[in-house]
Amino acid sequence: MSTPIAIDTLISASWILPIVPANSVLEECAVAIDNGAIVALCTQREAAARYAPRQQIDLPGQLLMPGLVNAHCHSAMTLLRGYADDLPLQRWLEEAIWPAERELVSDAFVAAGSRLAIAEMIATGTTSFADMYFYPEATAREALNAGLRAQLAAPIFDGAGSWSSGADDSIHKTLKLRDDYKNHPLIEIGFGPHSPYSCSDAAIKKIATFAAELDMPVMIHLHETAQEIADSVRDHGCRPLARVERLGLLGPRSQCVHMIAASDDELAVLAANGSHIVHCPSSNLKLASGMAPVARYAVAGVNVALGSDGAASNNSLDLFSELRLAALLGSAVAGDPAAIDCHTALRMATLGGASALGWQDRIGSLEAGKQADLIAVDLSGIAQQPLYNPASQLVYSAAGSCVSHSWVAGSPLLRDRQLTTINRAALLREVREQWQPQIAALRR
Amino acid sequence: MSTPIAIDTLISASWILPIVPANSVLEECAVAIDNGAIVALCTQREAAARYAPRQQIDLPGQLLMPGLVNAHCHSAMTLLRGYADDLPLQRWLEEAIWPAERELVSDAFVAAGSRLAIAEMIATGTTSFADMYFYPEATAREALNAGLRAQLAAPIFDGAGSWSSGADDSIHKTLKLRDDYKNHPLIEIGFGPHSPYSCSDAAIKKIATFAAELDMPVMIHLHETAQEIADSVRDHGCRPLARVERLGLLGPRSQCVHMIAASDDELAVLAANGSHIVHCPSSNLKLASGMAPVARYAVAGVNVALGSDGAASNNSLDLFSELRLAALLGSAVAGDPAAIDCHTALRMATLGGASALGWQDRIGSLEAGKQADLIAVDLSGIAQQPLYNPASQLVYSAAGSCVSHSWVAGSPLLRDRQLTTINRAALLREVREQWQPQIAALRR
Repeated sequence: MSTPIAIDTLISASWILPIVPANSVLEECAVAIDNGAIVALCTQREAAARYAPRQQIDLPGQLLMPGLVNAHCHSAMTLLRGYADDLPLQRWLEEAIWPAERELVSDAFVAAGSRLAIAEMIATGTTSFADMYFYPEATAREALNAGLRAQLAAPIFDGAGSWSSGADDSIHKTLKLRDDYKNHPLIEIGFGPHSPYSCSDAAIKKIATFAAELDMPVMIHLHETAQEIADSVRDHGCRPLARVERLGLLGPRSQCVHMIAASDDELAVLAANGSHIVHCPSSNLKLASGMAPVARYAVAGVNVALGSDGAASNNSLDLFSELRLAALLGSAVAGDPAAIDCHTALRMATLGGASALGWQDRIGSLEAGKQADLIAVDLSGIAQQPLYNPASQLVYSAAGSCVSHSWVAGSPLLRDRQLTTINRAALLREVREQWQPQIAALRR
Repeated sequence: MSTPIAIDTLISASWILPIVPANSVLEECAVAIDNGAIVALCTQREAAARYAPRQQIDLPGQLLMPGLVNAHCHSAMTLLRGYADDLPLQRWLEEAIWPAERELVSDAFVAAGSRLAIAEMIATGTTSFADMYFYPEATAREALNAGLRAQLAAPIFDGAGSWSSGADDSIHKTLKLRDDYKNHPLIEIGFGPHSPYSCSDAAIKKIATFAAELDMPVMIHLHETAQEIADSVRDHGCRPLARVERLGLLGPRSQCVHMIAASDDELAVLAANGSHIVHCPSSNLKLASGMAPVARYAVAGVNVALGSDGAASNNSLDLFSELRLAALLGSAVAGDPAAIDCHTALRMATLGGASALGWQDRIGSLEAGKQADLIAVDLSGIAQQPLYNPASQLVYSAAGSCVSHSWVAGSPLLRDRQLTTINRAALLREVREQWQPQIAALRR
């Protein structure tokens, strides 16, 4: 018998859903982790013979899976959760959100809002998120303090704000921040042209040039509403997707967020460019923006990821809720209950998200060599019984509240449902005593 | 100063959402309860001066509201949760569910499944449910043991099954069971003609006659799919609603379950008869049956209630999840984010459900004289901060897992998230060790 191999951590669970290979669920297996990466998945018996872990964690009744990737968020806006509801997108932005932001946005606001968002995301199973908001440097600090993986972009548009004097300044600051985080293991900086309707051709072209040259991710709200599409046809003689394609913005690192509508020709363009669609079903329904036919997108060969959007338009960052809604709504829109089955939805929320962020070689599945970004989901509760098919239970019966443990690069962020890197009591105190009264006063 | 009035229980909370008056949220108030009924809602200061409660419960950071009414369920089918997913209604019924039921259905199966469903419903805030399944006498026993309010009907159709030899026998047994529970404070027996397509004209007419004479509730799956409507036009020369109306089935105690489509004329018929629509959004999406335009229904003056449907087609009995989906989907289908706002969704899940069951004078709102059926929802978690508007938080950010306490007629069913009337460990053991292996074996 050979000498056991020393490793950092061995985690055993009743089930492992690795995402790759597709549609598979392993029973009574374990994940071996060393130096932040996955060494192997194997049976618990093999693991006992092969490894000498410094730490061993046994999770009976629980399931291990890749951490969820929230591919579109505006973390800081969590401080505006429930501030304005039941309004359509343009009125919601123009009458409620933008005026509040003009009063509030600062490094401190973004830091506190991001910390609140990150706490909620960790507690509900997200281990990576893509975020678009002002002061991304503040969100980066909070993500790092909490140990969460993040891809961050400042929203770029033609007007001035407290963070920037306009599009050129935003591009300049984005490039500067990129240098600060170059080759960082957890943080990557991208471009965030807010939307085609808020950016000039010149700004989009400039972003496209830098992004292509520097291999930077680009996140843009695209085809969020029928109105946006109609306005573009009126103002530019073409639909928004055609315009950003003409300006060179579409590439394998482009995240087209929302896409409530896309023709077959547009899907072919996205597929040819290797661009990604980020589906935010709760936000699209809540703002009555539309219903993306995601089953058609997948058939066309376009990668689909899932996003919560900001907590101001959702109003939850629980990606399990998006997962369930993506499966339910995607099937109903397709008129076929098998159109988005449970494994497809789980893949969107993990490897689909990782691919959209350009991180598919590092995260998104439980495979040897990938980073140890994973979560444990407790399937022992009343609402998950009986349990014939763990994948079905994850999508249709579980919720973020079932997540018990979370690790990023092998480091624990959640242990027995307790945050390990964020002081929950201090965070709640700051939100309730400092921010809530100040923000509530704006509405009076 | 007058002598304090002795009462059983005084419950204080940070917020009370009484449903009536509409759109109101009370702060720092209390509910006084005596002899199972609500005596008064008043400020905590008034309560301290006025009442001498035998038991006082203080719930800071929590919200009191009427217990949720799950207006359509098939409790026993919880044992088939996740047994067959991602199939359309007819294949799901014919290839998976009905064959399994033929093997399984018995008093013991219904008792165990109902107990599991009831445990989940109590834990997620439901205090009353309407149920359609075989052996309703077993569900009645379990509801009574657990202390939950229930309106129960056996499915009636033309064929024979283990519970009954056919429609006439089912009607006979329903009437017999009604006698057993006549004037019972918690249980009412109704008729459950399964659907127009599974009942002959003669059976529907007979049910309509008895129901009208005896003022009995009637629950029927109606307009669940476009196929059902097309088949009826082909076979009966009219849509299903017209057929059941012609046969006399529509009245103020009729619960039309699903109704994914209804013309303006059909809505006028429902409104004129005072009949109710029970909207089951998760089930309708999951089976890709359709999307009910519930905002139109409400505008037409038809009462809309919410149902989980059975756990085999949802796969959750958490009515908070239906509440959120009803608001999101109802707004998106209407193309107006204000179409189903948060107060409207909360009313559907409480007073709307109570009205559908014919219990609007007893439950559904927190008003003096009504039964003390209420729940406490903990809004102190990370995912509910900041808190500008408790109603918004309840609908868009909360989940059944936020429910901390539950009372029916003043008796506690859930205390600090622990079931008080069901032995959770024994229930889990029975489901896992006895039922799950037996049912899983059927699929092999």
